Amino acid sequence: MRYLSQIFQPVITIPRDAIIKNTEITCKSQKLLLECGLVRPTSAGFFTILPLARRVLNKLETLVHHCMEEIGAQRMSLPSLTAAKLWEKTGRLQDIGVELLKVEDRHGKKYVLSPTHEEAMADLLADIGPLSYKQLPLLLYQISNKFRDEPRPKHGLLRSREFSMLDAYGAHTTHACASETYDRVTNTYRKLFDTLQLPIHRVAAPSGAMGGTLSHEWQLTADTGEDILDMCLKCDRVVRAETVNDVCDKCASEMKRVNSIEVGHTFVLGERYSAALGAHYTARETTPTPIYMSCYGIGITRLLAASVEALGNDKALRWPDAIAPYRLLIIGPKEGSKEWSIGGWEEVQRLGQELEQVGLAGDVLLDDKHTHTIGRRMKAADRMGYPIIVVCGRSTTENPPKYELYTSKAVGYTAPILLTRTELITEVARIARNGNIDIQLASKRLYVLGFHGFSPTISYRTGFRGFYYQCRNKSGMSNYVVEAPAGPGPGGARISPVNIENASYSVLKRYNDIVKSKEDKREYRILETVVDPVHELAGSTGEIP
Amino acid sequence: MRYLSQIFQPVITIPRDAIIKNTEITCKSQKLLLECGLVRPTSAGFFTILPLARRVLNKLETLVHHCMEEIGAQRMSLPSLTAAKLWEKTGRLQDIGVELLKVEDRHGKKYVLSPTHEEAMADLLADIGPLSYKQLPLLLYQISNKFRDEPRPKHGLLRSREFSMLDAYGAHTTHACASETYDRVTNTYRKLFDTLQLPIHRVAAPSGAMGGTLSHEWQLTADTGEDILDMCLKCDRVVRAETVNDVCDKCASEMKRVNSIEVGHTFVLGERYSAALGAHYTARETTPTPIYMSCYGIGITRLLAASVEALGNDKALRWPDAIAPYRLLIIGPKEGSKEWSIGGWEEVQRLGQELEQVGLAGDVLLDDKHTHTIGRRMKAADRMGYPIIVVCGRSTTENPPKYELYTSKAVGYTAPILLTRTELITEVARIARNGNIDIQLASKRLYVLGFHGFSPTISYRTGFRGFYYQCRNKSGMSNYVVEAPAGPGPGGARISPVNIENASYSVLKRYNDIVKSKEDKREYRILETVVDPVHELAGSTGEIP
Ligand SMILES: [Zn+2]
Ligand SMILES: [Zn+2]
Repeated sequence: MRYLSQIFQPVITIPRDAIIKNTEITCKSQKLLLECGLVRPTSAGFFTILPLARRVLNKLETLVHHCMEEIGAQRMSLPSLTAAKLWEKTGRLQDIGVELLKVEDRHGKKYVLSPTHEEAMADLLADIGPLSYKQLPLLLYQISNKFRDEPRPKHGLLRSREFSMLDAYGAHTTHACASETYDRVTNTYRKLFDTLQLPIHRVAAPSGAMGGTLSHEWQLTADTGEDILDMCLKCDRVVRAETVNDVCDKCASEMKRVNSIEVGHTFVLGERYSAALGAHYTARETTPTPIYMSCYGIGITRLLAASVEALGNDKALRWPDAIAPYRLLIIGPKEGSKEWSIGGWEEVQRLGQELEQVGLAGDVLLDDKHTHTIGRRMKAADRMGYPIIVVCGRSTTENPPKYELYTSKAVGYTAPILLTRTELITEVARIARNGNIDIQLASKRLYVLGFHGFSPTISYRTGFRGFYYQCRNKSGMSNYVVEAPAGPGPGGARISPVNIENASYSVLKRYNDIVKSKEDKREYRILETVVDPVHELAGSTGEIP
Repeated sequence: MRYLSQIFQPVITIPRDAIIKNTEITCKSQKLLLECGLVRPTSAGFFTILPLARRVLNKLETLVHHCMEEIGAQRMSLPSLTAAKLWEKTGRLQDIGVELLKVEDRHGKKYVLSPTHEEAMADLLADIGPLSYKQLPLLLYQISNKFRDEPRPKHGLLRSREFSMLDAYGAHTTHACASETYDRVTNTYRKLFDTLQLPIHRVAAPSGAMGGTLSHEWQLTADTGEDILDMCLKCDRVVRAETVNDVCDKCASEMKRVNSIEVGHTFVLGERYSAALGAHYTARETTPTPIYMSCYGIGITRLLAASVEALGNDKALRWPDAIAPYRLLIIGPKEGSKEWSIGGWEEVQRLGQELEQVGLAGDVLLDDKHTHTIGRRMKAADRMGYPIIVVCGRSTTENPPKYELYTSKAVGYTAPILLTRTELITEVARIARNGNIDIQLASKRLYVLGFHGFSPTISYRTGFRGFYYQCRNKSGMSNYVVEAPAGPGPGGARISPVNIENASYSVLKRYNDIVKSKEDKREYRILETVVDPVHELAGSTGEIP
């Protein structure tokens, strides 16, 4: 458990059209991450990752490691500096040399500060080889800082000159063997992005630059993205908008043009690098043959910024639950208030410790800025976008004491629910637990009621004993859909089953019930919040009954 | 659970006096890590960390993160590239410029590939500042790759040009405030090195180069080290052997000259960097004052290699239990053997899964090289130094089946203990559990019997109901001491109590009992193995009774 006042978080306000350290502020994530004290530019295209953003990266890296290890990939580390002569041999020193940062050592030997490691990996395999076909396939990966001398670094962490990346390299005998690995990595990418609840699409890409035979980009749809895609409104087809794609070539439905950010790529490289650098394998009775390579990347720092682009609003950060800097913030009483004077602060610290025990170990932050009003601190917390906020205000003086529970929405937070201490702990435990499960839902069918605003009145009227989903569409609006038992039932007749794989909304939260609260002015109650995978829900024909 | 055949581990044999990629093989860790397929040079002073070594680094990094977070340090990340002009301002571009790798971007701007980040940190504090005195002290840290253009990189990972380091930076108001942080970090260093069971000493150092006021080196005693220390044979005094130190200046006892490897440093820097770069804080009613800085480093990749220097023998790796690549290896039956033919391999896989459940999750490796004899695989396993080895050989055909349990010694392994499946799981669970506790022993007194070879005969004769310690002295030999209840008792009269803080042996393992095994040729049995802190046990005057 940490105290907010101890967090190194230099919050600032950037004047409109300001230029910070020779860098123009051009996008939401850049502005918010800087203003909220999460990231700080050192010079054009270089950034210091401050503690709260570092926590996000830690969580992202842990998820990536887990996903890669699960498919049998083995972590290793290649040096950042690669001999320039390797880049000469593959022809890339000439091809993309202007984007490479170069280093010359005291003996005049030239190195490249690697933006990627195909050369280094092929050289390693060559150095060890020829490998036996029995040693293949092989999948090696690292997470490390990469370097690219962008002519005009911009958009903060979305296009920086030093950035953290996952890069994985497959070594295979044949294209068929490479394809199998490619599919394995594709699946683990989907799983990772599902866990992050982000609308990330696999898009066929030309693989020319890398010299391969098969390639996809992984694109996160966000209004501020620089890439442009055409998405089918009915099926899962997404293509690069290089030509006019009015109609889906898969299902003939209408397509919609959207902006996106590339957060990953996957390539089957073939023999380009292995042949140039002599990385061979031998099969029974054959002469050494170039290894058939594949490679895979995910921009870790870029994904952090891209998730802010996708989920944040104009004034506040929002996070995938799985990578929020802290999952729960407790705002303690104001110094000198009635609740403070009855020893509320000591009680809040005990509460924090208990909440850490119910599934939020290391993820509870205590706002101890006692001299500020609760309102002011709530405003700052909204800006940071903690998924759960517990406020210990005036109602903690009641008998029994009551705590206010808030959960984040795309803009602002839910109306507070007043809970006793025991109720609060049970509730937070459920939210914490569900935040880590239900990935299986990706394969479930959803029954979509409709994309209505989630007004308490409407919700209360529905009266279902089913599941309610808070969703987000491509323009960032929150909408709600309901999953109810199939077949007849209250309103059941009006429900259209939709395969979630063929849809266009991403589910952010699930409510397993909505009831009228006993508290005045609090019309509904969230009983369960789960992290769902990226479900794309097709436009519904149903209505709220 | 992983299978050995799937691990990417290019094992080679280096001919005597070989030169690998322009690098001479000059030390034990360099040779062993290369031959065992853990590390691979790419060019002089640069190394690829292969999967097994990467696992060691993962564990080391996790321990370091844990230790730093525990004292309230906040993780962050500074860019590898620091503007050269910052190094100009502190004068270090001139002072140590020749050791710096430099980069010029496409616009001609100059950067340093940082070997350390005092400049970057002071610049960050200046950029944010002036800080309020209320924000101090502050302790920020990172683990990242650093760069140094060594004139003649040598000794493998002990002196490479790109290396992983922990670097932490304290920001304070006064020297007194810095001293408090310094003590906190010193304590967490001790705790870390205790966990690693490595004989690491804090040695006063001149702080000239860094411009500070207080400085220590953290030195691991190892015969192959390049630094030279004088150690008191009685008390904890260790000094750099810059002059002749025949006699301890603390207790007047004789001193002994030993070799060592610097694995960490700690500095109180004062105002040198903050004054040069304008990093200020303000107290009530004062004008901005330079922040009083401190800094702390641990060479992560160097520590990996140094631990091999300290614990490994001429032909085989040995690891601190806490960072072994895998803690337990199971050697399955040979293909075609009787034990194989009765379905032994399936049984071994089930056993492996069960052993993962008793405290070794992710740390069990299965040797599935079925075509090799058990003897050959045992030899390879010895070379890798897995702390625990379970052999499923001929005796698994008995009724009930018996498994052979081995634990690593400085040279070779203990004689095997034959255990039933249930006994084995209980035993491994105990070893796994104890591997993580008993750090508290550092403050206990030990009763030293003597530094005799641990022959079963002697052990059995002792007959104590006390604790037996496997120890290691500076020349790498394993020795054994016994802790027994104070006062008279069997042999008690001959025991000399020794304060473990004033001693010269490090305890590696503890046996809570030694009994004659029922098995022929197996004279003793290890009932408990614990990771102990670095105890330095003074030369004993006692004898085995
Ligand atoms: Zn379509
Ligand atoms: Zn002394």
